[in-house]
Amino acid sequence: MEGERLFNREEADLLLDIMVNRRDVRGNRFLDRPIEEDRIQQILLAAVNAPSVGFSQPWEFVLIKCNEIKQQIKESFIRENEKGADQFEGEKQKEYNRLKLEGICEAPLNIAIFYSQAQKPVLGQTSMSEVGLYSVVCAIQNMWLMARALNIGMGWVSIIDPEKVKQILKAPEQNKLVGYFCLGYTSQFLKQPELEILKWESRKEMKEIIFNDTY
Amino acid sequence: MEGERLFNREEADLLLDIMVNRRDVRGNRFLDRPIEEDRIQQILLAAVNAPSVGFSQPWEFVLIKCNEIKQQIKESFIRENEKGADQFEGEKQKEYNRLKLEGICEAPLNIAIFYSQAQKPVLGQTSMSEVGLYSVVCAIQNMWLMARALNIGMGWVSIIDPEKVKQILKAPEQNKLVGYFCLGYTSQFLKQPELEILKWESRKEMKEIIFNDTY
Repeated sequence: MEGERLFNREEADLLLDIMVNRRDVRGNRFLDRPIEEDRIQQILLAAVNAPSVGFSQPWEFVLIKCNEIKQQIKESFIRENEKGADQFEGEKQKEYNRLKLEGICEAPLNIAIFYSQAQKPVLGQTSMSEVGLYSVVCAIQNMWLMARALNIGMGWVSIIDPEKVKQILKAPEQNKLVGYFCLGYTSQFLKQPELEILKWESRKEMKEIIFNDTY
Repeated sequence: MEGERLFNREEADLLLDIMVNRRDVRGNRFLDRPIEEDRIQQILLAAVNAPSVGFSQPWEFVLIKCNEIKQQIKESFIRENEKGADQFEGEKQKEYNRLKLEGICEAPLNIAIFYSQAQKPVLGQTSMSEVGLYSVVCAIQNMWLMARALNIGMGWVSIIDPEKVKQILKAPEQNKLVGYFCLGYTSQFLKQPELEILKWESRKEMKEIIFNDTY
């Protein structure tokens, strides 16, 4: 155990504080101020220290600062968002249309994150092949927490056509887009998730989602 | 911005420290010592503060302490692990068979984590339906970091038949098993991932996985 890092309760509570204060940040909150290079590196360092099945590290990151590329991605969002709105009705649809759901052009930095499948069998991925994708999502969550700890906002844009984004970014055919993100300094981190404040959805109670030994 | 929580660089560096020291812990390291109830609650609190698409919180957790149930899960692991070993050849297969890849019976607590799909359209999930599953993975990564900050080991067991596990745990038909985990105090957190130490896989360099604007 020599030299092993042990954490104390205050450190664990600080981690919870970062988690609880993390928000999905959208375009109406981003500031027009670039993110310092060392902070971008710290966020990427968080990513590559995520767990990955069989230590396969199946992640790839495209960092986008070019306005023309952002504009092309934004066009995919606009098309998909119209289709998304159609899935809601009446008041809910009106509320949907009032929401700002991305910050592609406002955020100084966009990051597209891909799953690049190994070309050989991966230890631990032989029964549930989806765990490779899940490794990439673990990296995403590490980045989101690190961004928040650096007081940088991050937002997940899932209302896009992943094939269109692959084409815009010239991604290899075999890669899969896992997530598309906007990052930047922000005017405000809301106290609660915006959709909770707006009562779009309510917070689930622990007793609804925790089971003992079996369902 | 009144009352908004801002973090300093030391706090961000502590977060990185937790991430870098997080390990996948297997059965040869778990101690036979129960996890205190308040620590289990802190790990679950980390989970439910993960991001979720449209604030859908599509996660459900089965906490398993019963030895008989663990034994049934272990049987699924044994069957799947034999199939897994068959995908490797020669020396690699011998090395595979020397590795301890789970800690189902040794760990005092197992947690099965499911995706429970909403019965209505979810904001943000209309173009990429897989983002509901990804929300559950974000919760998993929060748990893993919190466990580490509490000096509790956690290991992901992916070499199981998810349908068999659903049956053992009497999970609703529509739920999907995302991950199965072993948690407990541990004799040691290795300095590096075990598969890196054993040179099963080598660490990727940043320049291999980072691209600017496009591939």
